[in-house]
Amino acid sequence: MAEISRSELDEIYDFAVQLGQDAGQMLLDAAKLRMGDGAASKEQKEHIEKENAVDLVTETDEDVEAYIKSQITSRYPSHKFIGEESYSKGSSRDYLIDDEPTWCIDPLDGTVNYIHLFPMFCVSIGFIHKSKAIIGVINAPFLNQSFSACSGRGAWLNGTQKLPLIRNPIPPMPENAPKGCVFSCEWGKDRRDVPDGNMHRKIESFVNMAAEIGGRHGRGGMVHGVRSLGSATLDLAYVAMGAFDIWWEGGCWEWDVAAGIAILQEAGGLVTTANPPTNHTNAPIEDVRLGSRLYLAIRPAGPSSTETGRKSQERTVREVWRRVRNLDYSRPGA
Amino acid sequence: MAEISRSELDEIYDFAVQLGQDAGQMLLDAAKLRMGDGAASKEQKEHIEKENAVDLVTETDEDVEAYIKSQITSRYPSHKFIGEESYSKGSSRDYLIDDEPTWCIDPLDGTVNYIHLFPMFCVSIGFIHKSKAIIGVINAPFLNQSFSACSGRGAWLNGTQKLPLIRNPIPPMPENAPKGCVFSCEWGKDRRDVPDGNMHRKIESFVNMAAEIGGRHGRGGMVHGVRSLGSATLDLAYVAMGAFDIWWEGGCWEWDVAAGIAILQEAGGLVTTANPPTNHTNAPIEDVRLGSRLYLAIRPAGPSSTETGRKSQERTVREVWRRVRNLDYSRPGA
Repeated sequence: MAEISRSELDEIYDFAVQLGQDAGQMLLDAAKLRMGDGAASKEQKEHIEKENAVDLVTETDEDVEAYIKSQITSRYPSHKFIGEESYSKGSSRDYLIDDEPTWCIDPLDGTVNYIHLFPMFCVSIGFIHKSKAIIGVINAPFLNQSFSACSGRGAWLNGTQKLPLIRNPIPPMPENAPKGCVFSCEWGKDRRDVPDGNMHRKIESFVNMAAEIGGRHGRGGMVHGVRSLGSATLDLAYVAMGAFDIWWEGGCWEWDVAAGIAILQEAGGLVTTANPPTNHTNAPIEDVRLGSRLYLAIRPAGPSSTETGRKSQERTVREVWRRVRNLDYSRPGA
Repeated sequence: MAEISRSELDEIYDFAVQLGQDAGQMLLDAAKLRMGDGAASKEQKEHIEKENAVDLVTETDEDVEAYIKSQITSRYPSHKFIGEESYSKGSSRDYLIDDEPTWCIDPLDGTVNYIHLFPMFCVSIGFIHKSKAIIGVINAPFLNQSFSACSGRGAWLNGTQKLPLIRNPIPPMPENAPKGCVFSCEWGKDRRDVPDGNMHRKIESFVNMAAEIGGRHGRGGMVHGVRSLGSATLDLAYVAMGAFDIWWEGGCWEWDVAAGIAILQEAGGLVTTANPPTNHTNAPIEDVRLGSRLYLAIRPAGPSSTETGRKSQERTVREVWRRVRNLDYSRPGA
């Protein structure tokens, strides 16, 4: 297995940040063509009129992934590449990440937002080595926000503001978490109206987290706010920022979360599984498995007078597990 | 009743845009003091350590409102002023807007977001004349986004991009709306776990909008996405932008929505009541009443080959009404 030196890693990080910027610009340029004041050429305008927004976005998605892939392949020909677009077209959804240096890319996360030009979309670039996401770059061009992290180098907003944003000191998780927490969650694509389907399991969990203390047969969590952005990648970025305290989600693939997990872990956050283990009050809290499709993320937390930051995160994990249902997402063949 | 000339109105508009920028900067400066890299003085740091985030935010909220009020009062001493902070402290929540020139201000919308430093917060400045919101300015400083509109002058993002963003041509509402629509909604503060309370009425409505077509006893709307930002003002701004197709909410006060409604209406959007009238398939679709606390907003829409834009908006209103419950928000004494 190839080792990577500190200086090589720093170089890869710089390359990834620049790649994120260039790819983000491509997304923004393509979005502007669809806007009224876009400087589209006559050919572009005819092209836009002929296709619908969804087709145009699919095209951009593929173009951006091809660009990223070509940049990586020419700079690092020995590295593996896993991209959403190329992966989706393959016949298998096996878990492909191993110990080799691997790039894990989503050219466009928040596709629905991008189609509707809601600013919460981004390009997501993760670099994985020895099965761990160690570099993450998330570029959200319509928000002018770039999140990045490299193992040992800290996590950053726009390269200048260290994450989490509030850090003198970094606050512990609230004493009565999830009360006082901003809870981030997504409705997702599985909308089947079957009593025990994922949509109803999610809703039941969301309502438990939101309801007043004492409500829901003692499961009411009275979170401070419930947020849904439509981008798993940006959810993770805002957990790393400390703006969201808790993110709970099932169904994402590794390219949706690789960069975000790298950034969140480097910022001091905790990522584990969404599904409560049988003995959820005592079970060990295991590090997330990148290909698990089930994620629970807790923001960076500092110590209080009675607890370490990690303890307060783990306490929060158990309080979430107490309120959520198991979600039914597996891998083909898993 | 005082008449306002075109040139006076343009002058008021310029003043409001500048006021939004200055107030937004105050919000951002105060937020930066709480961040790790804020250039806080020794006195400020001691002050920040002594107070909790909520108290600090309340203080900022009051400071910004006082600033806005003083600017308005010295420039336009004859105009009335309604601000969230001053209003909340009064004994009554009567509807105070009449035909006089009136400023309707929320110094900080998205308070929970601001406490947690999630970027979706803003200052909201509405100017009302003859009971209609005719100028709106929404400044979201952490997003670098300023939305503004003045009756007859169009609606704008950052003063340069006309709203809605997609306008060559402006698309009609989807043929099978709410399918294909981004649906924006908020969980709000009323989290009582009582079977017929607002929380459960909202959830039931959200699930109807989200579920697959054919689900929910025929009420499934299969919206393209469900979004919750935690700011009524920014929800309206994104409907004006065309990024959200539908926003449905109860409980807001006039300062939460005055600016947003001015911007959305100037962009070509429709705002009516959240609560379905008894005969919701035929009832006339009335313009929103600013003090009603019940709002349903539809994005600007252009004509299709079979329908005017307005018709497609009205069709969407009825499809939403068919899927949502009545919400229970009234005014004291109303």
